Amino acid sequence: MNIRLTSGKILHILEGKSILQTLKREGIYLVSSCGGKGICGKCRVRLLEGKVGSVSTGRLQPPDIDRGIVLACQTFPEEDILIDIPKESRLVVGDRIEVSRSRDLFELFQSLNAKIFPIVRWVSLDIPPPTITDNNSDLERLKKAASGKGLKDLRFSHGFVSSMATALRNANWKVNLAYTDAPEAILLSPMEDKNRYGISIDIGTTTLVVYLVHLTDGRLIDVGSTYNSQIRYGDDVITRIIHASEGNGLDELRDTVVSDINTLLTPMGERHTVNIECIESAVISGNTTMLHLFWGLNPAYIREEPYIPTLNSFPLWKAGAAKLNINPQAPVYTVPCVASYVGGDIVAGVLASKMHRNSEIALFMDIGTNGEIVIGNTEWLVTAACSAGPCFEGSGITHGMRATEGAVESVRIDPQTFEPTLGIIGQGKAMGICGSGMIDAITEMFLRGIIDRKGKFVKGLETERIRKGLEGPEFLFSSNEGRDIVLTEVDIENIMRAKAAVYAGISLLLQKVGFTFDDIERVYIAGGFGNYLNIEKAIIIGMLPDLPRERFRFLGNTSIAGGYLCLLSESMRKEAEEISRKMTYVELSVSRRFMDEYMSALFLPHTNMGLFPTVEKLLTIK
Amino acid sequence: MNIRLTSGKILHILEGKSILQTLKREGIYLVSSCGGKGICGKCRVRLLEGKVGSVSTGRLQPPDIDRGIVLACQTFPEEDILIDIPKESRLVVGDRIEVSRSRDLFELFQSLNAKIFPIVRWVSLDIPPPTITDNNSDLERLKKAASGKGLKDLRFSHGFVSSMATALRNANWKVNLAYTDAPEAILLSPMEDKNRYGISIDIGTTTLVVYLVHLTDGRLIDVGSTYNSQIRYGDDVITRIIHASEGNGLDELRDTVVSDINTLLTPMGERHTVNIECIESAVISGNTTMLHLFWGLNPAYIREEPYIPTLNSFPLWKAGAAKLNINPQAPVYTVPCVASYVGGDIVAGVLASKMHRNSEIALFMDIGTNGEIVIGNTEWLVTAACSAGPCFEGSGITHGMRATEGAVESVRIDPQTFEPTLGIIGQGKAMGICGSGMIDAITEMFLRGIIDRKGKFVKGLETERIRKGLEGPEFLFSSNEGRDIVLTEVDIENIMRAKAAVYAGISLLLQKVGFTFDDIERVYIAGGFGNYLNIEKAIIIGMLPDLPRERFRFLGNTSIAGGYLCLLSESMRKEAEEISRKMTYVELSVSRRFMDEYMSALFLPHTNMGLFPTVEKLLTIK
Repeated sequence: MNIRLTSGKILHILEGKSILQTLKREGIYLVSSCGGKGICGKCRVRLLEGKVGSVSTGRLQPPDIDRGIVLACQTFPEEDILIDIPKESRLVVGDRIEVSRSRDLFELFQSLNAKIFPIVRWVSLDIPPPTITDNNSDLERLKKAASGKGLKDLRFSHGFVSSMATALRNANWKVNLAYTDAPEAILLSPMEDKNRYGISIDIGTTTLVVYLVHLTDGRLIDVGSTYNSQIRYGDDVITRIIHASEGNGLDELRDTVVSDINTLLTPMGERHTVNIECIESAVISGNTTMLHLFWGLNPAYIREEPYIPTLNSFPLWKAGAAKLNINPQAPVYTVPCVASYVGGDIVAGVLASKMHRNSEIALFMDIGTNGEIVIGNTEWLVTAACSAGPCFEGSGITHGMRATEGAVESVRIDPQTFEPTLGIIGQGKAMGICGSGMIDAITEMFLRGIIDRKGKFVKGLETERIRKGLEGPEFLFSSNEGRDIVLTEVDIENIMRAKAAVYAGISLLLQKVGFTFDDIERVYIAGGFGNYLNIEKAIIIGMLPDLPRERFRFLGNTSIAGGYLCLLSESMRKEAEEISRKMTYVELSVSRRFMDEYMSALFLPHTNMGLFPTVEKLLTIK
Repeated sequence: MNIRLTSGKILHILEGKSILQTLKREGIYLVSSCGGKGICGKCRVRLLEGKVGSVSTGRLQPPDIDRGIVLACQTFPEEDILIDIPKESRLVVGDRIEVSRSRDLFELFQSLNAKIFPIVRWVSLDIPPPTITDNNSDLERLKKAASGKGLKDLRFSHGFVSSMATALRNANWKVNLAYTDAPEAILLSPMEDKNRYGISIDIGTTTLVVYLVHLTDGRLIDVGSTYNSQIRYGDDVITRIIHASEGNGLDELRDTVVSDINTLLTPMGERHTVNIECIESAVISGNTTMLHLFWGLNPAYIREEPYIPTLNSFPLWKAGAAKLNINPQAPVYTVPCVASYVGGDIVAGVLASKMHRNSEIALFMDIGTNGEIVIGNTEWLVTAACSAGPCFEGSGITHGMRATEGAVESVRIDPQTFEPTLGIIGQGKAMGICGSGMIDAITEMFLRGIIDRKGKFVKGLETERIRKGLEGPEFLFSSNEGRDIVLTEVDIENIMRAKAAVYAGISLLLQKVGFTFDDIERVYIAGGFGNYLNIEKAIIIGMLPDLPRERFRFLGNTSIAGGYLCLLSESMRKEAEEISRKMTYVELSVSRRFMDEYMSALFLPHTNMGLFPTVEKLLTIK
């Protein structure tokens, strides 16, 4: 049996495989946030010809079903079929993403008073060439010369020795030796060769960023970024962990992300005529699951109570072991993690925020695919993961999508007519709603009295925009060519759960250390989503605490920024390690008080309106 | 174009490839001592049909040429051809070789007063399982438990950590941890698992031997041996080094020998139900070139003046890096070398001989594919390589062959009729002459007056056995079915060169240390060939010094014996390292005095008959 696409392509179906599995095997990836479990309703395809068996229609609406829409993960062809894949179902990965360089990185580095001190150090060796009467082996000669420069007990890997003999002779026995402080010999290069490069990599659950850095002066040479193609196996860390435990899923996930990185690296090297082999060190940052997957470590125990990672502090392994396409001898430094759900990305973030150096009490929030928070100052740090889930990236929301072309990113609703005005990324037709659009939409619906403080639609309003859908009431934001964009009551509930988790997490951490919201002198917001977050509206829905607005700072991607700092300087690496050791991790999932806080936060903005004086005022004025 | 074999097999010929290359590509290997340079004359095949172009006929004799014999390496088909491959041209590798266990290895071990102390040590750890309130990572838990047993600053490779999480849980957190004294963590096993295995491997230029050893009691569980399939690229180290420098020759040579070892290992594991993964350490012994090839290190500089190996002392690398089919984490200890032409096999040999522990002055000789000698005692050791070449294994001798079925291994010549009586391995037809047969033949020809002291045929003798061949005079030992077995004057010259090199090497080393032959209190003869050497006759031709016969001892394969000792005990490894450091290497190739000694030794038994009193007496009596 075959699947024929409207493009003309024909795919052979293996016995018992769904449409989604068949497409995946042929390299055609659909949005599949739930990893193919029939839950997210994103892998919609339109059946034009042929008979199929469907396990479930999930969240599909009758008009869609009438049009022949099926869920690819739940549908099994029973004969040759012809399908059309709508644009919004296609998983767009491999695209380069624009990265905002929100601040001058090197300025940040200098503000930390750190000296450039990369992972790899170099020493010049002038080795006497061998003669018939001085016939020590190459390695003995090298050892002796290194010892003369105070470098004793060097370790030599098989990889290093394999290319050593020729490298020594090519350089006419005048070489620069690269070594780590193990101490281990890493590379040899001719003495005149002075260019030194490193890369810093941030592996997000959703996006990947790679920095190519000149290690002598700290110059950022190039930036590459792309979606993490692991998305094809699910949107959040949990679906990835589940996939890793199935068949050769771990290898698949590992190969996928490493291949993404290598695909970014090759053109960067070419653009700047940097031989990939000359990249002498790398830093990897990311959440604990991403770092386990990058290193091919089974993340299963991260998900099972009591949630134990294989490691938080990673040894300095080699690029060869990581399969990174740089010099295979290059050491790869992994920013240390704190716990299963507070990873190296958060440690890097704290480092880049400098909150660990100041006496003022700061709140650090990274609202990405997950939501992690840190509170503290130079003396103490507490942290927790809020399980906010990836809803702000579109997952679990009927028409949720990432902030790419076609996403509704801002919403205004007319107080009288309830007619919405939409801001759409790329100015084209609305294909879905992204995180900032969701917060805007809920704020507007709340302020206009369309939804109540519990997030439920107010009954009896004079508008056809509120209608009854399959999953209950919903608000219609846009409609074109048979594709309606709505927010359902269930969607709003999901978003409120996410915002409640974030706020409750902050509350609980504050309680743990005996402080109140007013004690927070600074709020740092990190993560790609952070940049587009409207503070005012995030306060109105009760996601962020109602603090003076000037206390909020957007830091952008602090995971990559912290990785960059670690790439450049040993003192930064030591600080990252100290941060990871110093942070007290609070496991929210088992806390009774967290559940209380969470329930209280499931209102707009909160059960206790006293916590949100400016919102109360706003509602009163109205 | 195709080559058809008489067996019916058809091989496609690639443009410009010789018969030898075509056969090799299809996995059919011929004896090709010179590595396909048209010199050795061993890769003979018979052309039955079709037209060919021949570059050279090398050492082929007119009757052979008349019969259609061509050299496969020098012959290029010009159309479809049919050939027959004579049995003697087929390279027999992969066969198991009988290994004489000439002495009880464990007795040797005990006689050295060494304690069993393998490369890998074990410690039992009872690790507290994690809980929600004690949520340190797996690695932190393991480190803490190890530290509690005094094991601090352990290193953890990526390979170790990759399987750690599951291993800890499978063992219910009660594990045995294997580590080396780096200190580095190597393996985890459940606490009840007590079997520990290691392997010792001797990589000879011609043969490979593998011992499977129980590391708890030192028991030799099994022995496997085979020819080193690298023979297909040439017989001696020089042809191998040349091959390594051509195209992907280095990889080919490396893969070939590692595949030989792995092919021996699998059935050994099966026979004794030893899981290959449970082999926790390995020792490799061999000459410097073989060790470089095993580790995939370019041996080019071994061959070029000033003859420098990449390393003599090898770091403890992993079985995974070596591609050995045992636990990839298992450390592989390489017996240290002394110089480019005195390798770990000789260091292992000295160790097994115990000469380095005694005050008596001993001479150690390893007459294998090359010829290495050591003189010394507990206070000093000098060593040299004699470049004897592999002629005693058949290379460079018209009808030379290894000591396998069909080889003439002993010769008696009737003093009156000059008719020879041959001892043939396997009692069948003579197919060639092996090393011991050559020494016998020359001794007999010398004693019967067939050749003079210069090794030249005496003119005017009444026998048709002496005849004129293509390369000058030759002696016919056997003739059947058109295949004559001869020793030519050129062959005799080659053998005399080899024996002269050995004797001159000993002379020069003795001069260096100010001793004479009479000071040698013990002569140890090692190597596979050693076992079949007739001491009396080797003295008559002047290969061995004319010393009282009771001073000679055969030790068999001391390379594998020394490897076994190193596998079992740290003190043995330390002794091997001390031996390698202590040995003074003398480079003969650049010594003017060596050339003088060598020229003097190019007689039977020697120019100075006074050095061979018992031979002089024998000749006088006659």
